[in-house]
Amino acid sequence: MKKAIMIIQCQDQRGIVAAVSDFLFAHYGNILEIDQHVDQESGMFFMRAAWELETFSLPEEHILPTFELAIGKKFGMKHQLYIENKKPKMALFVSKQSHCLFDVLSRHYSGQFQVEIPFVLSNHETLRPIVEAFGIPFHHIPVLSGEKEVAEAEQLALLAEHQVDFIVLARYMQVLSEDFVSRYPNKIINIHHSFLPAFVGAKPYHAAYERGVKIIGATAHYVTAVLDAGPIIEQDVARVRHHNTISDLVQIGQDVEKVVLSKAIKYHLERKVLPVGNKTVIFY
Amino acid sequence: MKKAIMIIQCQDQRGIVAAVSDFLFAHYGNILEIDQHVDQESGMFFMRAAWELETFSLPEEHILPTFELAIGKKFGMKHQLYIENKKPKMALFVSKQSHCLFDVLSRHYSGQFQVEIPFVLSNHETLRPIVEAFGIPFHHIPVLSGEKEVAEAEQLALLAEHQVDFIVLARYMQVLSEDFVSRYPNKIINIHHSFLPAFVGAKPYHAAYERGVKIIGATAHYVTAVLDAGPIIEQDVARVRHHNTISDLVQIGQDVEKVVLSKAIKYHLERKVLPVGNKTVIFY
Amino acid sequence: MKKAIMIIQCQDQRGIVAAVSDFLFAHYGNILEIDQHVDQESGMFFMRAAWELETFSLPEEHILPTFELAIGKKFGMKHQLYIENKKPKMALFVSKQSHCLFDVLSRHYSGQFQVEIPFVLSNHETLRPIVEAFGIPFHHIPVLSGEKEVAEAEQLALLAEHQVDFIVLARYMQVLSEDFVSRYPNKIINIHHSFLPAFVGAKPYHAAYERGVKIIGATAHYVTAVLDAGPIIEQDVARVRHHNTISDLVQIGQDVEKVVLSKAIKYHLERKVLPVGNKTVIFY
Amino acid sequence: MKKAIMIIQCQDQRGIVAAVSDFLFAHYGNILEIDQHVDQESGMFFMRAAWELETFSLPEEHILPTFELAIGKKFGMKHQLYIENKKPKMALFVSKQSHCLFDVLSRHYSGQFQVEIPFVLSNHETLRPIVEAFGIPFHHIPVLSGEKEVAEAEQLALLAEHQVDFIVLARYMQVLSEDFVSRYPNKIINIHHSFLPAFVGAKPYHAAYERGVKIIGATAHYVTAVLDAGPIIEQDVARVRHHNTISDLVQIGQDVEKVVLSKAIKYHLERKVLPVGNKTVIFY
Repeated sequence: MKKAIMIIQCQDQRGIVAAVSDFLFAHYGNILEIDQHVDQESGMFFMRAAWELETFSLPEEHILPTFELAIGKKFGMKHQLYIENKKPKMALFVSKQSHCLFDVLSRHYSGQFQVEIPFVLSNHETLRPIVEAFGIPFHHIPVLSGEKEVAEAEQLALLAEHQVDFIVLARYMQVLSEDFVSRYPNKIINIHHSFLPAFVGAKPYHAAYERGVKIIGATAHYVTAVLDAGPIIEQDVARVRHHNTISDLVQIGQDVEKVVLSKAIKYHLERKVLPVGNKTVIFY
Repeated sequence: MKKAIMIIQCQDQRGIVAAVSDFLFAHYGNILEIDQHVDQESGMFFMRAAWELETFSLPEEHILPTFELAIGKKFGMKHQLYIENKKPKMALFVSKQSHCLFDVLSRHYSGQFQVEIPFVLSNHETLRPIVEAFGIPFHHIPVLSGEKEVAEAEQLALLAEHQVDFIVLARYMQVLSEDFVSRYPNKIINIHHSFLPAFVGAKPYHAAYERGVKIIGATAHYVTAVLDAGPIIEQDVARVRHHNTISDLVQIGQDVEKVVLSKAIKYHLERKVLPVGNKTVIFY
Repeated sequence: MKKAIMIIQCQDQRGIVAAVSDFLFAHYGNILEIDQHVDQESGMFFMRAAWELETFSLPEEHILPTFELAIGKKFGMKHQLYIENKKPKMALFVSKQSHCLFDVLSRHYSGQFQVEIPFVLSNHETLRPIVEAFGIPFHHIPVLSGEKEVAEAEQLALLAEHQVDFIVLARYMQVLSEDFVSRYPNKIINIHHSFLPAFVGAKPYHAAYERGVKIIGATAHYVTAVLDAGPIIEQDVARVRHHNTISDLVQIGQDVEKVVLSKAIKYHLERKVLPVGNKTVIFY
Repeated sequence: MKKAIMIIQCQDQRGIVAAVSDFLFAHYGNILEIDQHVDQESGMFFMRAAWELETFSLPEEHILPTFELAIGKKFGMKHQLYIENKKPKMALFVSKQSHCLFDVLSRHYSGQFQVEIPFVLSNHETLRPIVEAFGIPFHHIPVLSGEKEVAEAEQLALLAEHQVDFIVLARYMQVLSEDFVSRYPNKIINIHHSFLPAFVGAKPYHAAYERGVKIIGATAHYVTAVLDAGPIIEQDVARVRHHNTISDLVQIGQDVEKVVLSKAIKYHLERKVLPVGNKTVIFY
C-alpha cells in the first residue's frame, strides 16, 4: 500500500475540512488518517491528511498543482506533499556517548524506522567501531578550537553530497553555528538531557543534582539559533531520590533520552510534527 | 457560545468525512472539533463533530431529520445529537468510603463538571453529612441480604423520577443486577481499584499485595452484566514498594482512583467516549 | 502503639549506626524504621529512627538527655525527638482557589493526616463557606497594597496564639516577607504549579503554554527568602498536548498539585523530610 | 574501593541491627549502605549491608565464619556474602526478537553492567550476527517438538561448563522445564510483556488489545515452575489509545520491556533483590 501525506497550513476559515475531504473523495482517495488543529493565538489552521495512492485518480505529479488550483489558492494555503516511496535520509551526529547512538541504530536495524542513514559523523573517533559494526560509514570531523567554521564546511559538504533530509544530534556535544542551523530549519533534532526549559546548556544532570529536583527529564527539540530554545517535540521524565548520585542521574536519564529521541524521530519521519512559531503541533 | 455535538457510527465507506463536513459547511456550521476512527477489526467508522450553533442555519429540531435525509440514510449511519444547553443529570452511588465522593463533589462545586447531581444514594448512612454539606439530597437505601430486588426497585424509581441520564458508582460496594444494568447500557460508570483485567472482584489491593506487584492501579469502566469486564474508559497506575502495607496501598491507590474516575466522568460528559463492542474509542 | 522518632544529623564517622542502634537496643526499644544517608558533598550523616515507646526503659523526658550524654556529644550530633502523642498543628493559608483546600480538608476529614488544623487563613472571603462546612475556623486577613506588614503582624499573632507548628500555603497567592519566612524555617510548605526550576514566579501555566512544553508539573517546597527556590520536597508531572488550552493546563495541573502537596504534608508530618542545604533527604 | 555485601535473613528479633552494625564497626568496616525490612506476614527480618573491605580487619575468608560464630548462630540467620572482586557470569537466552538483546549488550558494552557474558544461546540462528558483532560467542540449540529434554541437557552442559551464575531470558520464547528451573532457583530472570498478573502466557499484546486496556506494561520476574507466576522484580507501563494497532502496542511495549529488564538485571547484580516467598524485597 503506497501512501500520500499532505500537510496544510493557512488562516482558519470555514469550509477547509469540507474542501480538502471533498478533493480527496472526488479523486477516489481512501482517507487513512486526517487530523486538524486551530491555534487559538495565531488563528492558524493546521491539517494532516494521509490517503492510499493506489486508487487515487490523479498521477503523483499532478496532485500538488491540481490541489493548488482547486483549493490551495482560494484558502491561501501553504502545503507539502510526501509520497511514501522513498525513505528520507537521516544523518547522525554524535560525540563520545554511545547510548543514543546504539538505540537509534538498533531500532533502524530491526526495521522500526523507515529511514536511510547514509553516515554517522563525529568530532571524536570513539564510536567508530559501533557504527561500522552496523555497516554504516563513519566520518570523523574534529572540531578544533576556533575552527568550527572549517569543520562545519566539511559537514555541510557531506550533507549535501548525500542529499541528507534531516539531522539527528544524538548527544553531539558541539553547538552548531547560526549559519549552519539556518540551512536546516526544523530539520535538526537535538536531544537535550533535561526537561526544558529547566537546566538549559551544559551539564544539566549536575545542575539537577545541585537543585535537588525529584524528577529529571529529557527533551527532543528542533534546533534554532538560540541554545536549547527551539520547538519542543517530545519530553519525558523519571523519578530520582536523595541517595542518587550524579552518576545515577546520568544513567537513569539516559534511558529517558533514548525513548524521547526515538519518539521524536518517529513523529518526524511520519510527518506528524508541524512547527508553529516556537511550538509544535504533533498529530500522534 | 452554544455548541452542538454529533456522534456518528457506520460501516466504513469512502466519502463519509467529505459528506459530513460538507453538511456542516453548507449550513454555516463552524467546526470546533472533528475526530474520526476506523476500527480495523469490525470495519466500523466512528466520528465526533462539534460545531457552533449560533451561526448554524438549521433550527435545532431540524438538524437530525435533515442530516438523516441528506447523509445518514445513504451511509446507514447511527447518530446522536447533543445540544449543550442543558446539563445532563448524574446520580452518584456510594457506600462508606469518602475519597471519590469528596473528589467528585468538590470538582462539581468548583465548576469543573458541567452536570447536575440530583441526589447521592447510598446503602449506608455514613456519608450523609458530607453530601448534605454540599447542599445535595442524600438517599439512604439499605441493601438487605437477599433483598437486592427491593432496593433496586427503589433506586430505579428515584432515577426515573429525577430523569437521571447516567450513574457513577463512586466506590459503591454492591453488585448491580443484570436487569438493573440492562436499563442503563454504557450509562453506568464504575471505578474499580485495580488495573483491570488484573485483580477482578473484591479486595484488589489485598490481592495486589499478595501477588507482590510493583505497580497498582485503578480502572474506570462502563458496567455490564459481567463483573469488572465492561468497556474500559480510563486507567492509571502508581508505584509501590515492598515496605508498603495493604493500608499504604489503599491510600496510594485512592489518589489514582480519584483522578481516573474524574477523567472518565469528564470524557463521558463531553461525549468523547464511543463504546465499540467491549472497548472504547475516546476522542480526547 | 506509641511511637518515638529521632532525627539525627552529624559529620559522617564510623560507628554511628552501631552506637544509635546499641542505644535503642540497650533500653529495650523495638526499632520500627531506621534509615540513614550520607551526603557526599558535605560529608554529613543523616538518620531517622522510629521505635515503639511501650517497652522502652527510659521515660520520655529522659530520652534526649540520656542520648545526648551517651552518644550525641561524642559524635557532635544535632538531634530532634518527636513523640507521637500529640498531633502537630498545621495552619492553612489560601486565596481564592479551592482545589488544594478541598483536597487537604477532605484528607483530614477522612483521617489520612494525623494533624490538627486550628484555622484556615485567607486574604479573600471566597473560600469561607467550604472551610466552615468542615467545622474549621476561617480568618479573613486582607493584604492591602503596601500594607503587607500589617497583615503579617496579624497573621503572626494568630499563629502564635494557636501555637502553630507549621504552615501550608495551599495556593496562597501572596509572597511572604523575608522576616515572616525567617520565623518558620523549613516549616512553611508551598505548592508551586510548575516543575521547578522551570517557570518560577507568577502564571507558570501561561509560561508553560507559551514555551510549548509537552509535560507540566507541580512542586512542593519549603519556603525560603528567595521566591520558589527553597528545598524541594516532592514533584510530579502530567502530559499535555498541542490542543490543550491554558485552561486545560490549569485543570490538568491542579490534579498534580493536589497529590504533590498532600505527599509533602504527609512526609513532613511523619518527620521523613530532612533539609540539607537547599535540598531534602526524604526517607519514604 | 573493594566492597563487601552481606545479605541476612532471620526471624525478626530485637537487637539484630545493633548486633550487625556492632560487628562491622568492631572490625573497622566503613558502612556504605545498610537497609532492612520486616515482612509483617511472615515476621521475617531482611537486611543488606555493604561496606568497604580495605579497612576491614578480617581477611575475606574469615568474614563468614566469624560472623556466624559471633551473631549468625545466636539469631538463627541465613546469610550470604558477596565480595565485589569478580564479575558474576550471566547467560542470555534469546529467540528471534532483537530489542532486549541489543539493549542488554549495548549496556554491557558501555560498562553499565558489572557482569561477564560468556555466551548467548538461542533456539534460532536469527540473532547470531548481532551477538558476534559484540564479540560474544553465540550457541544455536534448536528445541525440536517433543525433544525439549535433549535441548535442555545441552543448555545445562553449557551453563555448567561456563560456571554461569544466573540466566536472563531476553524474550526467549520457550517454556523451561520444571527440572531446569529447579536448578537455578531465583537465578533465572524473565521479561514478560504484560503487567502481570494480567495477560499471563502467550501473546499478551494481542490479549491487551482485545481487552481494550488503556495502559500496557512489562514485568521482570524470577522464573518458577508456574508460568509467569514467579516473584516480581520490576514492572512498568505505558499509555496506549484506541487508534493503536497491535503492532503499535508491540513497539510501545518493547521500550518498556527493555527498561524493566535492565533494571531487574541491575538490582540482581547489586544483590538488591531478596526473594521472600513469592514476593521480592528490593533495596534500591
